Amino acid sequence: MRVSVIGGGTVDEAAAEQARAVGRLLGERDHVVVCGGLGGVMAAACEGAHAAGGETVGILPTADRRDANEYVDTAIATGLGHARNALVVMNGDAVVAVDGGAGTLSELGFAGVFDRPVAGLGTHDAPGVEAVDSPAEAVDYVESASSSQH
Amino acid sequence: MRVSVIGGGTVDEAAAEQARAVGRLLGERDHVVVCGGLGGVMAAACEGAHAAGGETVGILPTADRRDANEYVDTAIATGLGHARNALVVMNGDAVVAVDGGAGTLSELGFAGVFDRPVAGLGTHDAPGVEAVDSPAEAVDYVESASSSQH
Amino acid sequence: MRVSVIGGGTVDEAAAEQARAVGRLLGERDHVVVCGGLGGVMAAACEGAHAAGGETVGILPTADRRDANEYVDTAIATGLGHARNALVVMNGDAVVAVDGGAGTLSELGFAGVFDRPVAGLGTHDAPGVEAVDSPAEAVDYVESASSSQH
Amino acid sequence: MRVSVIGGGTVDEAAAEQARAVGRLLGERDHVVVCGGLGGVMAAACEGAHAAGGETVGILPTADRRDANEYVDTAIATGLGHARNALVVMNGDAVVAVDGGAGTLSELGFAGVFDRPVAGLGTHDAPGVEAVDSPAEAVDYVESASSSQH
Repeated sequence: MRVSVIGGGTVDEAAAEQARAVGRLLGERDHVVVCGGLGGVMAAACEGAHAAGGETVGILPTADRRDANEYVDTAIATGLGHARNALVVMNGDAVVAVDGGAGTLSELGFAGVFDRPVAGLGTHDAPGVEAVDSPAEAVDYVESASSSQH
Repeated sequence: MRVSVIGGGTVDEAAAEQARAVGRLLGERDHVVVCGGLGGVMAAACEGAHAAGGETVGILPTADRRDANEYVDTAIATGLGHARNALVVMNGDAVVAVDGGAGTLSELGFAGVFDRPVAGLGTHDAPGVEAVDSPAEAVDYVESASSSQH
Repeated sequence: MRVSVIGGGTVDEAAAEQARAVGRLLGERDHVVVCGGLGGVMAAACEGAHAAGGETVGILPTADRRDANEYVDTAIATGLGHARNALVVMNGDAVVAVDGGAGTLSELGFAGVFDRPVAGLGTHDAPGVEAVDSPAEAVDYVESASSSQH
Repeated sequence: MRVSVIGGGTVDEAAAEQARAVGRLLGERDHVVVCGGLGGVMAAACEGAHAAGGETVGILPTADRRDANEYVDTAIATGLGHARNALVVMNGDAVVAVDGGAGTLSELGFAGVFDRPVAGLGTHDAPGVEAVDSPAEAVDYVESASSSQH
Protein backbone atom coordinates (compact mmCIF):
# COMPACT_ATOMS: atom_id res chain seq x y z
CA MET A 1 0.00 0.00 0.00
CA ARG A 2 0.95 3.64 0.04
CA VAL A 3 1.63 5.41 3.32
CA SER A 4 1.81 9.17 3.65
CA VAL A 5 4.53 10.16 6.07
CA ILE A 6 3.93 13.66 7.38
CA GLY A 7 5.68 15.90 9.87
CA GLY A 8 7.81 18.95 10.33
CA GLY A 9 9.92 20.35 7.51
CA THR A 10 12.63 21.14 10.03
CA VAL A 11 13.03 18.71 12.91
CA ASP A 12 15.63 17.69 15.47
CA GLU A 13 17.73 14.58 14.99
CA ALA A 14 15.54 12.43 17.26
CA ALA A 15 12.46 13.06 15.11
CA ALA A 16 14.48 12.64 11.91
CA GLU A 17 15.73 9.29 13.18
CA GLN A 18 12.15 8.19 13.88
CA ALA A 19 11.06 9.25 10.42
CA ARG A 20 14.02 7.42 8.89
CA ALA A 21 13.05 4.27 10.76
CA VAL A 22 9.44 4.59 9.64
CA GLY A 23 10.60 4.94 6.05
CA ARG A 24 12.93 1.97 6.37
CA LEU A 25 10.23 -0.30 7.75
CA LEU A 26 7.77 0.79 5.08
CA GLY A 27 10.37 0.09 2.40
CA GLU A 28 11.20 -3.31 3.84
CA ARG A 29 7.54 -4.25 3.79
CA ASP A 30 7.08 -3.07 0.20
CA HIS A 31 4.95 -0.06 0.96
CA VAL A 32 5.41 3.14 -1.01
CA VAL A 33 6.24 6.28 0.96
CA VAL A 34 4.25 9.34 -0.08
CA CYS A 35 5.31 12.69 1.36
CA GLY A 36 5.50 16.41 0.72
CA GLY A 37 8.86 16.02 -1.00
CA LEU A 38 10.85 18.56 0.99
CA GLY A 39 13.12 18.36 4.08
CA GLY A 40 12.88 17.32 7.71
CA VAL A 41 10.55 14.38 8.28
CA MET A 42 9.84 14.17 4.55
CA ALA A 43 13.49 13.76 3.57
CA ALA A 44 14.24 11.42 6.45
CA ALA A 45 11.33 9.11 5.63
CA CYS A 46 12.40 8.99 1.97
CA GLU A 47 15.99 8.33 2.96
CA GLY A 48 14.95 5.41 5.13
CA ALA A 49 12.70 3.96 2.45
CA HIS A 50 15.46 4.31 -0.11
CA ALA A 51 17.98 2.54 2.07
CA ALA A 52 15.56 -0.39 2.26
CA GLY A 53 15.00 -0.43 -1.48
CA GLY A 54 11.56 1.09 -1.19
CA GLU A 55 9.82 3.52 -3.50
CA THR A 56 9.08 7.16 -2.71
CA VAL A 57 6.72 9.81 -4.07
CA GLY A 58 7.10 13.50 -3.19
CA ILE A 59 4.20 15.90 -3.81
CA LEU A 60 5.72 19.37 -3.77
CA PRO A 61 4.15 22.75 -3.01
CA THR A 62 6.24 24.38 -5.72
CA ALA A 63 5.94 24.26 -9.50
CA ASP A 64 9.47 22.88 -9.92
CA ARG A 65 10.01 19.19 -9.33
CA ARG A 66 13.74 19.78 -8.84
CA ASP A 67 12.82 21.10 -5.40
CA ALA A 68 12.34 17.52 -4.23
CA ASN A 69 14.78 16.03 -1.75
CA GLU A 70 17.33 13.61 -3.19
CA TYR A 71 15.51 10.50 -1.96
CA VAL A 72 12.32 11.15 -3.87
CA ASP A 73 11.90 8.74 -6.81
CA THR A 74 8.79 10.29 -8.32
CA ALA A 75 8.55 14.01 -7.72
CA ILE A 76 5.25 15.71 -8.49
CA ALA A 77 5.27 19.48 -8.76
CA THR A 78 1.96 21.16 -7.96
CA GLY A 79 2.52 24.91 -7.62
CA LEU A 80 -0.39 24.86 -5.15
CA GLY A 81 1.50 26.07 -2.09
CA HIS A 82 0.05 24.79 1.17
CA ALA A 83 -3.12 23.54 -0.53
CA ARG A 84 -0.99 20.62 -1.69
CA ASN A 85 -1.26 19.24 1.86
CA ALA A 86 -4.61 17.80 0.85
CA LEU A 87 -2.92 15.88 -1.96
CA VAL A 88 -0.23 14.40 0.28
CA VAL A 89 -2.86 12.77 2.48
CA MET A 90 -5.23 11.85 -0.34
CA ASN A 91 -2.50 9.86 -2.06
CA GLY A 92 -1.78 7.51 0.83
CA ASP A 93 -3.91 4.66 2.11
CA ALA A 94 -2.81 5.50 5.64
CA VAL A 95 -0.75 8.14 7.42
CA VAL A 96 2.18 8.14 9.82
CA ALA A 97 2.79 11.50 11.50
CA VAL A 98 6.10 12.29 13.18
CA ASP A 99 6.37 15.49 15.18
CA GLY A 100 5.19 18.46 13.11
CA GLY A 101 3.57 21.85 13.47
CA ALA A 102 0.67 23.66 11.83
CA GLY A 103 1.10 22.17 8.36
CA THR A 104 1.03 18.71 9.89
CA LEU A 105 -2.13 19.62 11.79
CA SER A 106 -3.81 20.57 8.52
CA GLU A 107 -2.82 17.15 7.18
CA LEU A 108 -4.22 15.36 10.23
CA GLY A 109 -7.48 17.16 9.51
CA PHE A 110 -7.40 15.94 5.92
CA ALA A 111 -6.72 12.41 7.17
CA GLY A 112 -10.09 12.63 8.89
CA VAL A 113 -11.73 14.13 5.80
CA PHE A 114 -10.42 11.32 3.59
CA ASP A 115 -10.92 8.66 6.25
CA ARG A 116 -7.31 7.51 6.48
CA PRO A 117 -6.02 5.72 9.60
CA VAL A 118 -3.22 7.65 11.32
CA ALA A 119 -0.40 6.56 13.62
CA GLY A 120 1.23 9.42 15.50
CA LEU A 121 4.76 9.60 16.91
CA GLY A 122 5.17 12.66 19.10
CA THR A 123 2.68 14.60 17.04
CA HIS A 124 -0.59 16.45 17.73
CA ASP A 125 -3.22 14.78 19.86
CA ALA A 126 -6.04 15.06 17.35
CA PRO A 127 -9.19 13.02 16.67
CA GLY A 128 -8.36 9.81 14.82
CA VAL A 129 -4.66 9.86 15.65
CA GLU A 130 -3.48 6.62 17.29
CA ALA A 131 -0.56 7.63 19.48
CA VAL A 132 2.22 5.04 19.24
CA ASP A 133 5.62 4.69 20.88
CA SER A 134 7.90 3.52 18.12
CA PRO A 135 8.33 3.40 14.35
CA ALA A 136 7.57 -0.33 14.41
CA GLU A 137 4.30 0.25 16.23
CA ALA A 138 3.42 2.98 13.78
CA VAL A 139 3.91 0.75 10.76
CA ASP A 140 2.15 -2.19 12.44
CA TYR A 141 -0.78 0.06 13.24
CA VAL A 142 -1.30 1.44 9.74
CA GLU A 143 -0.95 -2.04 8.26
CA SER A 144 -3.60 -3.51 10.50
CA ALA A 145 -5.91 -0.51 10.35
CA SER A 146 -5.82 -0.49 6.57
CA SER A 147 -6.43 -4.19 6.21
CA SER A 148 -9.38 -4.08 8.60
CA GLN A 149 -10.78 -1.14 6.64
CA HIS A 150 -10.98 -3.04 3.37
CA MET B 1 -11.27 43.33 8.30
CA ARG B 2 -12.22 39.94 6.96
CA VAL B 3 -12.93 37.09 9.33
CA SER B 4 -13.11 33.46 8.22
CA VAL B 5 -15.87 31.67 10.08
CA ILE B 6 -15.27 27.93 10.00
CA GLY B 7 -17.06 24.94 11.45
CA GLY B 8 -19.21 21.95 10.71
CA GLY B 9 -21.26 21.70 7.54
CA THR B 10 -24.00 20.03 9.56
CA VAL B 11 -24.46 21.21 13.13
CA ASP B 12 -27.08 21.22 15.84
CA GLU B 13 -29.20 24.30 16.54
CA ALA B 14 -27.04 25.44 19.46
CA ALA B 15 -23.92 25.64 17.28
CA ALA B 16 -25.89 27.23 14.44
CA GLU B 17 -27.17 29.89 16.85
CA GLN B 18 -23.60 30.63 17.96
CA ALA B 19 -22.45 30.93 14.35
CA ARG B 20 -25.39 33.21 13.59
CA ALA B 21 -24.46 35.43 16.53
CA VAL B 22 -20.82 35.54 15.41
CA GLY B 23 -21.93 36.56 11.92
CA ARG B 24 -24.29 39.21 13.29
CA LEU B 25 -21.59 40.77 15.46
CA LEU B 26 -19.10 40.75 12.60
CA GLY B 27 -21.65 42.40 10.32
CA GLU B 28 -22.52 45.03 12.92
CA ARG B 29 -18.87 45.90 13.27
CA ASP B 30 -18.35 46.15 9.51
CA HIS B 31 -16.23 43.06 9.13
CA VAL B 32 -16.65 40.82 6.09
CA VAL B 33 -17.51 37.17 6.76
CA VAL B 34 -15.49 34.71 4.66
CA CYS B 35 -16.57 31.08 4.76
CA GLY B 36 -16.75 27.86 2.77
CA GLY B 37 -20.09 28.87 1.28
CA LEU B 38 -22.11 25.79 2.15
CA GLY B 39 -24.42 24.84 5.05
CA GLY B 40 -24.22 24.44 8.82
CA VAL B 41 -21.90 26.96 10.48
CA MET B 42 -21.14 28.53 7.09
CA ALA B 43 -24.78 29.30 6.30
CA ALA B 44 -25.58 30.40 9.84
CA ALA B 45 -22.66 32.84 9.97
CA CYS B 46 -23.67 34.31 6.61
CA GLU B 47 -27.29 34.57 7.72
CA GLY B 48 -26.27 36.48 10.84
CA ALA B 49 -23.99 38.81 8.91
CA HIS B 50 -26.70 39.44 6.36
CA ALA B 51 -29.26 40.29 9.03
CA ALA B 52 -26.85 42.92 10.33
CA GLY B 53 -26.25 44.36 6.87
CA GLY B 54 -22.79 42.81 6.63
CA GLU B 55 -21.03 41.42 3.59
CA THR B 56 -20.29 37.73 2.98
CA VAL B 57 -17.91 35.78 0.77
CA GLY B 58 -18.28 32.03 0.19
CA ILE B 59 -15.38 30.02 -1.23
CA LEU B 60 -16.88 26.80 -2.50
CA PRO B 61 -15.34 23.37 -3.04
CA THR B 62 -17.37 22.87 -6.20
CA ALA B 63 -17.02 24.37 -9.66
CA ASP B 64 -20.54 25.83 -9.58
CA ARG B 65 -21.11 29.03 -7.67
CA ARG B 66 -24.83 28.33 -7.47
CA ASP B 67 -23.97 25.81 -4.76
CA ALA B 68 -23.52 28.69 -2.33
CA ASN B 69 -26.00 29.16 0.49
CA GLU B 70 -28.53 31.96 0.01
CA TYR B 71 -26.74 34.38 2.35
CA VAL B 72 -23.49 34.47 0.37
CA ASP B 73 -23.04 37.80 -1.45
CA THR B 74 -19.91 36.91 -3.38
CA ALA B 75 -19.67 33.23 -4.21
CA ILE B 76 -16.35 31.94 -5.51
CA ALA B 77 -16.37 28.54 -7.17
CA THR B 78 -13.08 26.66 -7.01
CA GLY B 79 -13.63 23.06 -8.10
CA LEU B 80 -10.75 22.18 -5.75
CA GLY B 81 -12.68 19.92 -3.39
CA HIS B 82 -11.28 19.89 0.13
CA ALA B 83 -8.10 21.68 -0.93
CA ARG B 84 -10.21 24.83 -0.94
CA ASN B 85 -10.01 24.78 2.86
CA ALA B 86 -6.63 26.49 2.51
CA LEU B 87 -8.29 29.32 0.59
CA VAL B 88 -11.01 29.86 3.18
CA VAL B 89 -8.43 30.54 5.88
CA MET B 90 -6.00 32.43 3.63
CA ASN B 91 -8.73 34.94 2.74
CA GLY B 92 -9.49 36.04 6.28
CA ASP B 93 -7.38 38.20 8.57
CA ALA B 94 -8.53 36.13 11.51
CA VAL B 95 -10.61 33.02 12.16
CA VAL B 96 -13.57 32.13 14.34
CA ALA B 97 -14.21 28.39 14.64
CA VAL B 98 -17.53 27.05 15.85
CA ASP B 99 -17.83 23.34 16.51
CA GLY B 100 -16.61 21.35 13.51
CA GLY B 101 -14.97 18.05 12.59
CA ALA B 102 -12.07 16.97 10.44
CA GLY B 103 -12.43 19.66 7.78
CA THR B 104 -12.40 22.30 10.49
CA LEU B 105 -9.28 20.73 11.96
CA SER B 106 -7.53 21.08 8.60
CA GLU B 107 -8.51 24.75 8.60
CA LEU B 108 -7.18 25.25 12.13
CA GLY B 109 -3.89 23.85 10.82
CA PHE B 110 -3.92 26.32 7.95
CA ALA B 111 -4.64 29.13 10.41
CA GLY B 112 -1.28 28.29 11.98
CA VAL B 113 0.40 28.03 8.58
CA PHE B 114 -0.89 31.46 7.55
CA ASP B 115 -0.42 32.95 11.02
CA ARG B 116 -4.05 33.93 11.61
CA PRO B 117 -5.38 34.44 15.15
CA VAL B 118 -8.20 32.01 15.99
CA ALA B 119 -11.05 32.17 18.49
CA GLY B 120 -12.70 28.84 19.15
CA LEU B 121 -16.26 28.15 20.34
CA GLY B 122 -16.70 24.52 21.23
CA THR B 123 -14.17 23.45 18.63
CA HIS B 124 -10.90 21.47 18.63
CA ASP B 125 -8.32 22.20 21.27
CA ALA B 126 -5.45 22.88 18.89
CA PRO B 127 -2.31 25.01 19.05
CA GLY B 128 -3.10 28.68 18.53
CA VAL B 129 -6.82 28.34 19.20
CA GLU B 130 -8.03 30.74 21.91
CA ALA B 131 -10.99 29.01 23.52
CA VAL B 132 -13.76 31.51 24.24
CA ASP B 133 -17.17 31.23 25.85
CA SER B 134 -19.42 33.37 23.70
CA PRO B 135 -19.78 34.88 20.23
CA ALA B 136 -19.03 38.32 21.69
CA GLU B 137 -15.79 37.09 23.21
CA ALA B 138 -14.87 35.45 19.91
CA VAL B 139 -15.32 38.65 17.95
CA ASP B 140 -13.58 40.76 20.61
CA TYR B 141 -10.67 38.36 20.56
CA VAL B 142 -10.10 38.36 16.82
CA GLU B 143 -10.44 42.15 16.72
CA SER B 144 -7.82 42.67 19.39
CA ALA B 145 -5.50 39.92 18.17
CA SER B 146 -5.54 41.32 14.65
CA SER B 147 -4.93 44.90 15.71
CA SER B 148 -2.01 43.89 17.91
CA GLN B 149 -0.62 41.89 15.01
CA HIS B 150 -0.38 44.90 12.70
CA MET C 1 -24.17 38.56 -14.74
CA ARG C 2 -20.48 38.06 -14.14
CA VAL C 3 -18.01 38.44 -16.97
CA SER C 4 -14.42 37.22 -16.77
CA VAL C 5 -12.12 39.67 -18.51
CA ILE C 6 -8.88 37.96 -19.44
CA GLY C 7 -5.75 39.05 -21.25
CA GLY C 8 -2.10 39.94 -20.90
CA GLY C 9 -0.61 40.99 -17.58
CA THR C 10 1.52 43.49 -19.45
CA VAL C 11 -0.02 45.14 -22.48
CA ASP C 12 0.44 48.24 -24.61
CA GLU C 13 -1.77 51.27 -24.16
CA ALA C 14 -4.07 50.36 -27.04
CA ALA C 15 -4.99 47.01 -25.44
CA ALA C 16 -5.27 48.61 -22.01
CA GLU C 17 -7.67 51.18 -23.43
CA GLN C 18 -9.79 48.41 -24.93
CA ALA C 19 -9.86 46.55 -21.61
CA ARG C 20 -10.79 49.77 -19.82
CA ALA C 21 -13.67 50.30 -22.23
CA VAL C 22 -14.85 46.71 -21.78
CA GLY C 23 -14.80 47.19 -18.01
CA ARG C 24 -16.64 50.51 -18.28
CA LEU C 25 -19.40 49.03 -20.41
CA LEU C 26 -19.77 46.03 -18.13
CA GLY C 27 -20.00 48.33 -15.12
CA GLU C 28 -22.56 50.57 -16.80
CA ARG C 29 -24.71 47.56 -17.55
CA ASP C 30 -24.47 46.23 -13.98
CA HIS C 31 -22.32 43.24 -14.75
CA VAL C 32 -19.58 42.22 -12.33
CA VAL C 33 -16.04 42.04 -13.71
CA VAL C 34 -14.13 38.92 -12.66
CA CYS C 35 -10.41 38.82 -13.44
CA GLY C 36 -7.04 37.53 -12.32
CA GLY C 37 -6.55 40.53 -10.05
CA LEU C 38 -3.15 41.67 -11.30
CA GLY C 39 -1.95 44.23 -13.90
CA GLY C 40 -2.32 44.85 -17.61
CA VAL C 41 -5.73 43.88 -18.99
CA MET C 42 -6.87 42.84 -15.50
CA ALA C 43 -6.16 46.22 -13.92
CA ALA C 44 -7.49 48.17 -16.90
CA ALA C 45 -10.79 46.25 -16.93
CA CYS C 46 -11.22 46.81 -13.19
CA GLU C 47 -10.37 50.48 -13.56
CA GLY C 48 -13.02 50.89 -16.24
CA ALA C 49 -15.63 49.03 -14.23
CA HIS C 50 -14.83 51.10 -11.19
CA ALA C 51 -15.16 54.36 -13.06
CA ALA C 52 -18.66 53.27 -14.07
CA GLY C 53 -19.61 52.31 -10.54
CA GLY C 54 -19.34 48.59 -11.28
CA GLU C 55 -18.17 45.80 -9.04
CA THR C 56 -14.93 43.84 -9.48
CA VAL C 57 -13.58 40.51 -8.26
CA GLY C 58 -9.90 39.57 -8.57
CA ILE C 59 -8.83 35.94 -8.21
CA LEU C 60 -5.11 36.04 -7.52
CA PRO C 61 -2.40 33.43 -8.12
CA THR C 62 -0.68 34.38 -4.87
CA ALA C 63 -1.62 33.67 -1.26
CA ASP C 64 -1.72 37.38 -0.37
CA ARG C 65 -4.80 39.36 -1.31
CA ARG C 66 -2.87 42.61 -1.03
CA ASP C 67 -1.34 41.70 -4.38
CA ALA C 68 -4.57 42.75 -6.07
CA ASN C 69 -4.61 45.88 -8.21
CA GLU C 70 -6.22 48.94 -6.64
CA TYR C 71 -9.48 48.60 -8.57
CA VAL C 72 -10.37 45.17 -7.24
CA ASP C 73 -13.27 45.31 -4.76
CA THR C 74 -13.22 41.69 -3.67
CA ALA C 75 -9.78 40.15 -3.82
CA ILE C 76 -9.52 36.39 -3.48
CA ALA C 77 -6.10 34.95 -2.73
CA THR C 78 -5.55 31.39 -3.91
CA GLY C 79 -1.85 30.54 -3.66
CA LEU C 80 -2.45 28.20 -6.61
CA GLY C 81 -0.11 29.86 -9.08
CA HIS C 82 -1.17 29.44 -12.69
CA ALA C 83 -3.76 26.78 -11.79
CA ARG C 84 -5.92 29.69 -10.64
CA ASN C 85 -6.60 30.41 -14.31
CA ALA C 86 -9.29 27.74 -14.14
CA LEU C 87 -10.99 29.65 -11.33
CA VAL C 88 -10.98 32.96 -13.20
CA VAL C 89 -12.98 31.44 -16.05
CA MET C 90 -15.19 29.23 -13.87
CA ASN C 91 -16.38 32.29 -11.93
CA GLY C 92 -17.73 34.20 -14.90
CA ASP C 93 -20.85 33.47 -16.93
CA ALA C 94 -19.05 34.63 -20.05
CA VAL C 95 -15.57 35.75 -21.06
CA VAL C 96 -14.09 38.75 -22.86
CA ALA C 97 -10.48 38.26 -23.94
CA VAL C 98 -8.28 41.22 -24.85
CA ASP C 99 -4.87 40.51 -26.34
CA GLY C 100 -2.95 38.06 -24.16
CA GLY C 101 -0.34 35.33 -24.38
CA ALA C 102 0.01 31.79 -23.09
CA GLY C 103 -1.88 32.29 -19.82
CA THR C 104 -4.79 33.73 -21.77
CA LEU C 105 -4.69 30.73 -24.11
CA SER C 106 -5.03 28.41 -21.11
CA GLU C 107 -8.08 30.42 -20.05
CA LEU C 108 -9.62 30.21 -23.52
CA GLY C 109 -9.24 26.45 -23.19
CA PHE C 110 -11.02 26.52 -19.84
CA ALA C 111 -13.79 28.64 -21.38
CA GLY C 112 -14.45 25.68 -23.65
CA VAL C 113 -14.22 23.22 -20.77
CA PHE C 114 -16.75 25.20 -18.72
CA ASP C 115 -18.87 26.08 -21.74
CA ARG C 116 -18.60 29.86 -21.46
CA PRO C 117 -19.22 32.10 -24.48
CA VAL C 118 -16.15 34.17 -25.37
CA ALA C 119 -15.74 37.46 -27.23
CA GLY C 120 -12.18 38.12 -28.39
CA LEU C 121 -10.52 41.47 -29.08
CA GLY C 122 -7.15 40.98 -30.75
CA THR C 123 -6.63 37.70 -28.95
CA HIS C 124 -5.95 34.09 -30.01
CA ASP C 125 -7.98 32.58 -32.79
CA ALA C 126 -9.20 29.55 -30.84
CA PRO C 127 -12.30 27.36 -31.03
CA GLY C 128 -15.30 29.08 -29.50
CA VAL C 129 -13.81 32.56 -29.59
CA GLU C 130 -16.06 35.08 -31.38
CA ALA C 131 -13.70 37.67 -32.83
CA VAL C 132 -15.17 41.15 -32.42
CA ASP C 133 -13.97 44.61 -33.44
CA SER C 134 -14.78 46.79 -30.47
CA PRO C 135 -15.45 46.73 -26.72
CA ALA C 136 -19.12 47.45 -27.40
CA GLU C 137 -19.41 44.47 -29.71
CA ALA C 138 -17.65 42.31 -27.13
CA VAL C 139 -20.10 43.22 -24.40
CA ASP C 140 -23.09 42.92 -26.72
CA TYR C 141 -21.90 39.49 -27.76
CA VAL C 142 -21.47 38.06 -24.29
CA GLU C 143 -24.82 39.50 -23.23
CA SER C 144 -26.68 37.90 -26.09
CA ALA C 145 -24.76 34.62 -25.99
CA SER C 146 -25.42 34.22 -22.29
CA SER C 147 -29.10 35.00 -22.51
CA SER C 148 -29.59 32.56 -25.37
CA GLN C 149 -27.72 29.93 -23.35
CA HIS C 150 -30.16 30.06 -20.42
CA MET D 1 13.22 12.99 -19.38
CA ARG D 2 9.52 13.23 -18.69
CA VAL D 3 7.09 13.93 -21.51
CA SER D 4 3.51 14.99 -20.92
CA VAL D 5 1.23 13.38 -23.47
CA ILE D 6 -2.01 15.31 -23.75
CA GLY D 7 -5.12 14.98 -25.89
CA GLY D 8 -8.74 14.06 -25.92
CA GLY D 9 -10.28 11.85 -23.27
CA THR D 10 -12.39 10.22 -25.95
CA VAL D 11 -10.79 9.80 -29.37
CA ASP D 12 -11.21 7.73 -32.50
CA GLU D 13 -9.00 4.74 -33.18
CA ALA D 14 -6.63 6.67 -35.48
CA ALA D 15 -5.77 9.16 -32.75
CA ALA D 16 -5.53 6.40 -30.15
CA GLU D 17 -3.09 4.55 -32.40
CA GLN D 18 -0.95 7.68 -32.71
CA ALA D 19 -0.95 8.17 -28.95
CA ARG D 20 -0.04 4.51 -28.47
CA ALA D 21 2.88 4.90 -30.86
CA VAL D 22 4.05 8.05 -29.09
CA GLY D 23 3.95 6.22 -25.77
CA ARG D 24 5.80 3.25 -27.21
CA LEU D 25 8.59 5.38 -28.62
CA LEU D 26 8.91 7.32 -25.37
CA GLY D 27 9.10 4.08 -23.43
CA GLU D 28 11.70 2.62 -25.78
CA ARG D 29 13.85 5.68 -25.33
CA ASP D 30 13.55 5.59 -21.53
CA HIS D 31 11.38 8.64 -21.16
CA VAL D 32 8.61 8.71 -18.58
CA VAL D 33 5.09 9.38 -19.85
CA VAL D 34 3.15 11.88 -17.75
CA CYS D 35 -0.55 12.28 -18.49
CA GLY D 36 -3.94 13.07 -17.01
CA GLY D 37 -4.46 9.44 -16.04
CA LEU D 38 -7.84 8.85 -17.66
CA GLY D 39 -8.96 7.45 -21.04
CA GLY D 40 -8.56 8.27 -24.71
CA VAL D 41 -5.13 9.66 -25.59
CA MET D 42 -4.05 9.32 -21.95
CA ALA D 43 -4.76 5.61 -21.75
CA ALA D 44 -3.37 4.91 -25.20
CA ALA D 45 -0.08 6.68 -24.47
CA CYS D 46 0.29 4.78 -21.21
CA GLU D 47 -0.54 1.50 -22.94
CA GLY D 48 2.15 2.13 -25.52
CA ALA D 49 4.73 3.09 -22.94
CA HIS D 50 3.87 0.03 -20.88
CA ALA D 51 4.26 -2.29 -23.84
CA ALA D 52 7.76 -0.90 -24.32
CA GLY D 53 8.67 -1.33 -20.66
CA GLY D 54 8.39 2.39 -19.97
CA GLU D 55 7.16 4.15 -16.87
CA THR D 56 3.93 6.13 -16.62
CA VAL D 57 2.55 8.77 -14.26
CA GLY D 58 -1.15 9.77 -14.25
CA ILE D 59 -2.23 13.00 -12.58
CA LEU D 60 -5.95 12.67 -12.02
CA PRO D 61 -8.66 15.32 -11.65
CA THR D 62 -10.42 13.23 -9.01
CA ALA D 63 -9.56 12.55 -5.39
CA ASP D 64 -9.44 8.78 -5.94
CA ARG D 65 -6.34 7.29 -7.51
CA ARG D 66 -8.25 4.17 -8.47
CA ASP D 67 -9.74 6.25 -11.28
CA ALA D 68 -6.49 5.89 -13.19
CA ASN D 69 -6.40 3.79 -16.34
CA GLU D 70 -4.81 0.36 -15.99
CA TYR D 71 -1.53 1.40 -17.62
CA VAL D 72 -0.67 4.08 -15.09
CA ASP D 73 2.20 3.02 -12.80
CA THR D 74 2.11 5.98 -10.45
CA ALA D 75 -1.34 7.47 -10.07
CA ILE D 76 -1.60 10.84 -8.35
CA ALA D 77 -5.04 11.89 -7.16
CA THR D 78 -5.58 15.64 -6.94
CA GLY D 79 -9.28 16.35 -6.45
CA LEU D 80 -8.65 19.62 -8.29
CA GLY D 81 -10.95 19.00 -11.25
CA HIS D 82 -9.84 20.72 -14.42
CA ALA D 83 -7.28 22.86 -12.57
CA ARG D 84 -5.14 19.73 -12.55
CA ASN D 85 -4.39 20.42 -16.23
CA ALA D 86 -1.71 22.84 -15.04
CA LEU D 87 -0.05 20.00 -13.12
CA VAL D 88 -0.01 17.63 -16.08
CA VAL D 89 2.03 20.09 -18.12
CA MET D 90 4.19 21.32 -15.26
CA ASN D 91 5.36 17.77 -14.57
CA GLY D 92 6.77 17.11 -18.01
CA ASP D 93 9.91 18.52 -19.58
CA ALA D 94 8.16 18.62 -22.92
CA VAL D 95 4.71 17.96 -24.34
CA VAL D 96 3.26 15.84 -27.13
CA ALA D 97 -0.33 16.72 -28.02
CA VAL D 98 -2.51 14.31 -29.99
CA ASP D 99 -5.90 15.52 -31.16
CA GLY D 100 -7.86 17.01 -28.27
CA GLY D 101 -10.47 19.62 -27.50
CA ALA D 102 -10.85 22.43 -24.99
CA GLY D 103 -9.02 20.76 -22.12
CA THR D 104 -6.07 20.13 -24.41
CA LEU D 105 -6.15 23.78 -25.47
CA SER D 106 -5.86 24.82 -21.81
CA GLU D 107 -2.83 22.54 -21.54
CA LEU D 108 -1.23 24.02 -24.65
CA GLY D 109 -1.63 27.40 -22.96
CA PHE D 110 0.09 26.08 -19.84
CA ALA D 111 2.90 24.68 -22.01
CA GLY D 112 3.59 28.28 -23.02
CA VAL D 113 3.30 29.48 -19.43
CA PHE D 114 5.81 26.87 -18.24
CA ASP D 115 7.98 27.20 -21.33
CA ARG D 116 7.73 23.57 -22.46
CA PRO D 117 8.39 22.61 -26.09
CA VAL D 118 5.34 21.03 -27.74
CA ALA D 119 4.96 18.68 -30.70
CA GLY D 120 1.45 18.49 -32.07
CA LEU D 121 -0.21 15.64 -33.98
CA GLY D 122 -3.54 16.73 -35.39
CA THR D 123 -4.11 19.11 -32.51
CA HIS D 124 -4.79 22.86 -32.16
CA ASP D 125 -2.71 25.30 -34.15
CA ALA D 126 -1.55 27.35 -31.20
CA PRO D 127 1.55 29.46 -30.51
CA GLY D 128 4.55 27.29 -29.69
CA VAL D 129 3.06 24.09 -31.09
CA GLU D 130 5.34 22.42 -33.64
CA ALA D 131 3.02 20.57 -35.99
CA VAL D 132 4.49 17.17 -36.88
CA ASP D 133 3.33 14.35 -39.13
CA SER D 134 4.09 11.22 -37.18
CA PRO D 135 4.71 9.87 -33.68
CA ALA D 136 8.40 9.46 -34.52
CA GLU D 137 8.69 13.08 -35.55
CA ALA D 138 6.90 14.12 -32.37
CA VAL D 139 9.31 12.25 -30.14
CA ASP D 140 12.34 13.40 -32.14
CA TYR D 141 11.15 16.97 -31.85
CA VAL D 142 10.66 17.01 -28.09
CA GLU D 143 13.99 15.28 -27.58
CA SER D 144 15.90 17.81 -29.63
CA ALA D 145 13.96 20.83 -28.35
CA SER D 146 14.56 19.81 -24.75
CA SER D 147 18.26 19.18 -25.21
CA SER D 148 18.76 22.52 -26.94
CA GLN D 149 16.87 24.20 -24.11
CA HIS D 150 19.25 23.00 -21.41
